[in-house]
This record gives sequence, C-alpha cells and structure tokens, in this order.
Amino acid sequence: MTYAAPLEKANPSTPAVDMNALVECIQACFDCAEACTADADADLAEPQVQTMIRCIRLCLDCADVCLATGRMLSRQTAFDPATARADLQACALTCKVCGDECQLHAQHGFAHCQTCMEACRRCEQACNTVLTLLASLPA
Amino acid sequence: MTYAAPLEKANPSTPAVDMNALVECIQACFDCAEACTADADADLAEPQVQTMIRCIRLCLDCADVCLATGRMLSRQTAFDPATARADLQACALTCKVCGDECQLHAQHGFAHCQTCMEACRRCEQACNTVLTLLASLPA
Amino acid sequence: MTYAAPLEKANPSTPAVDMNALVECIQACFDCAEACTADADADLAEPQVQTMIRCIRLCLDCADVCLATGRMLSRQTAFDPATARADLQACALTCKVCGDECQLHAQHGFAHCQTCMEACRRCEQACNTVLTLLASLPA
Amino acid sequence: MTYAAPLEKANPSTPAVDMNALVECIQACFDCAEACTADADADLAEPQVQTMIRCIRLCLDCADVCLATGRMLSRQTAFDPATARADLQACALTCKVCGDECQLHAQHGFAHCQTCMEACRRCEQACNTVLTLLASLPA
Repeated sequence: MTYAAPLEKANPSTPAVDMNALVECIQACFDCAEACTADADADLAEPQVQTMIRCIRLCLDCADVCLATGRMLSRQTAFDPATARADLQACALTCKVCGDECQLHAQHGFAHCQTCMEACRRCEQACNTVLTLLASLPA
Repeated sequence: MTYAAPLEKANPSTPAVDMNALVECIQACFDCAEACTADADADLAEPQVQTMIRCIRLCLDCADVCLATGRMLSRQTAFDPATARADLQACALTCKVCGDECQLHAQHGFAHCQTCMEACRRCEQACNTVLTLLASLPA
Repeated sequence: MTYAAPLEKANPSTPAVDMNALVECIQACFDCAEACTADADADLAEPQVQTMIRCIRLCLDCADVCLATGRMLSRQTAFDPATARADLQACALTCKVCGDECQLHAQHGFAHCQTCMEACRRCEQACNTVLTLLASLPA
Repeated sequence: MTYAAPLEKANPSTPAVDMNALVECIQACFDCAEACTADADADLAEPQVQTMIRCIRLCLDCADVCLATGRMLSRQTAFDPATARADLQACALTCKVCGDECQLHAQHGFAHCQTCMEACRRCEQACNTVLTLLASLPA
C-alpha cells in the first residue's frame, strides 16, 4: 500500500519531472531507508559482527541520506532543481557504495544483506532516472 | 515492493511480538511518514494555506514521530519493551490527532488530506495492535 | 553557539510554556541526538563490540526519539499539548534507559559512554521539566 | 554545551580529517537543522505566510540534509570519503540556497530568518572546510 502516488497527484503544485519517475523515486528512498535501518540491526545481531562493521556504518549513512532525499522529493512546492540534483547525486552514490558492501555479505549467505542490496540498487537506479530527467529541464 | 518482511525474517534476533504485526507496523510507520511529509507540502501549495496551518504543523510532527517509531521497531536486537511501548503510545496518539485534522480538510474536498488521513488511521491501528501484543508479554 | 533561543523568541506564536525551559529542552534533544549517534559509532569501533550491542541499539533509538522530540518542540505554531506530552514521556524514558546503559560502560572506562550518559541525563531532565510545565496548563 | 568534541575525541577510530574542523562541521549541521526546523515554523506563523512558502520549503529541505550530514560525519568508523564528499556538497549547496532565501526575508525585518541565515552560512562554510580537507586526502 503506497500513498506517494495519490498524494503527489493531488498536490496543487506541478511536478518538476515525470510523475511516475518521481513517485517511484520517493517510494524507493523510503523503502531503502527502512531496509538499511533493518539491515544494520540484523548485522548487529550476527555472531560475526566484527566482520559487519563497515556494512553497519554504510547502512546507517544510507538510511539517513535516503530519508533526506525521499522527503525532499516529496515536496513539489517551490521545488529547487539544483539542490535536488546535488542531493540525488549524494543519494545515488551512497546507495551504490552501500549496495556493493551488502552484496559482499549476500555472497556469503546473509539473506538480510541480499534484501538490503536489492533496496539499494533499486534506489540508486530511481535516483539516476530522476537525475536524467532533471538534466533535461530548461535552465 | 516492501523489504520489511524479508528483512525482519532474516534477522538473527527473535522478534518480541508476532512477526506479521511487527512488519505491518514498521511499514505503516514509514508509509505514514511519507504521506505526512507530502501532505504538509500539498497544504502549503493551497491558495487557502492560512486555513491549513494546523494541518501542516501536525503533519510535520507526525512524520517525525512515525519515522522514529518505524526505525525503533525495525530493530529487533536487544529490543526494550518499555521504551517501545512509550514510543508506540506517542505515535498512536500523534497519528490520531493528525488523522482527525486531516479528516476535517478531507471533508472539504482536499484529496491529499483524505489520503494522509488513511495513512494516519492505518498507522494508529498498527501501533495499537503492537501495543496490545506488548502488553501480554511476561513482565 | 545556539540558535534555539533567538529563533523561538522571534517566532510570532506564543510559546505554550516558559521560554527558557522550552529552549533548554530543544537544545538538549538535539545535543542528545548528536551524542547518541556518535556514541553508537564509537561503540562499533571498540574491539569488544560484542559487549556493546545493547548500548548501540539504545543509542540509535535514543537519537531517533530525541530528534523527533526536538523538532516537535521547535514548532510553536498550533502547538498540541497532548501529543507533546506523549512524545516527551517517550523521550524522557528512552533517555533514562539509554543513560543507564551508557553508565554501565562509563564505569568500565569508556569515555564516550560517559559523555553520552551526561547528554541523556540532561535531556531526560529537560523533558521532565517541560512535562511538569505542561501539566499545569489549563485543560 | 556541546558533546561532539569529547565524543569524537574518545572514538577509537582515527578521524579522516582534522578533528576541530570535523567537530565544528558536526555541530554546525545539527545547529542548522534545529534553526531551519524552527524557522519553517516561525514562517508558518507569519500573517503573510503566502510570501514565505519558498522559505518554508527550503528550510524543511535544509533541516533534512543537515541532519543526514551531521549524522554521517558523527561516524568515524569505516569512514567513506567519496560518499561523505557527495553529501557535504549537497549540504553546502542546500545551505547556500536556503541562506540566500532567508537573507531576503531578513532584509524585510524577519528576525527569525536572520538567525536562520546565520546558521545556514556557518554550516555552508563548515561543510566547505571539510570538503577542502577531504580533497587533500591521498586517493
């Protein structure tokens, strides 16, 4: 059940980019924030927590950046393309680095890192899609 | 697409309460945070913004409290029932008060407030379900 | 350098409670969120991280709840005493439980836990002060 | 009263950049998040709220980005310079754009926007200082 689509459609402001891409990016950001928060905790519960330190740290960062980005994109009123762009770039990179780290652990059989990796990959892609759309806006 | 279910299931820690109720509450909290963030912005774009001030304020509060609660519940490791209970009570009440305010505006035809109200009602109910389950834990 | 005092004083809305108590509580919440975020990371860097799991978890919770509370209290417009009260109660309890855990580690010589405990104690006290003031408001 | 300095100093991890610059940036980020949250609310309480819409929106964005940055920088363990850099760039730009908007309103006599502008300028500068230090790290 997602509220992003009806809410963004009912917003009196005109969206800066294609509505479907925007909604998918908002949803991907919030979902990735949730996944990273949960994965950091699952890592912490692993007997070999010492090998998960970098994963925990990057998941905490990624949750924070995804929340900031998801919230910024949820706002259509007086949208500022330049700051959105910088934030989306930071979010896409953080998702890539965190997703790469999760992938290493997924390959060693950690199912929670596999799920988190999927959330990071989807969010990275959604940010890059919106970045491409923003790049084609008239200056 | 939700990651809460596979992530919580893959967590090595044992959940404090029924997994399905926990996952629904985590999801409802993040979804409500997203809805409230978007509704505050939609309110801000309304020509009659002066009549939406209380709705904006409560939506901003509700987004913050729902995020804190969704993140706390995403953590199963060393779960602390007493603090969870206090936080869920704060979240349920904030969702109720915010949902009531959104309902007033929904009745005047604001579709974004209708959607936000639904997110608040669902989150309030999910918090109360987990509260009931926590109340039956051995002391 | 704190901005809470001049900002709350310049707000056109009338504060619900004594301004000095309000400003101290806002500042204590943000400072405690910062301390808990940093302490969770310092714990993660300890060779005996396995003994710090509960401290990390509670610090992450406490940071989230303190941020939600600090942000809610920063808003004076259409202030809602009932939700503020529930949130302050959750924050005071979370600070108490987190502060108790930090104290255990401080007694074993972890200086970062000592500092975090001080931030938690101060925030717990500031929340309780505002709770007392809110209790004396006319219903 | 700030906890960032003793906490970062007690962290077993070696900081990636000069400790004083790091501590100032963490503090500036949290202080700016607090200022922007409070300024958005003060704007909302102004009789001429219709003229403050862009300021409210940018303050909400800036609070979110500053919190994400302040939290990321508070973590020294397994610090990732590339993601930190992208996030600091987003934060510095958001602070600049928000500070510019606040300045416009400060010039029209809004004291809360003047204070918020000062918080944004300080945070922008602190982010740029850390960015310069990160740029001189060996690749």
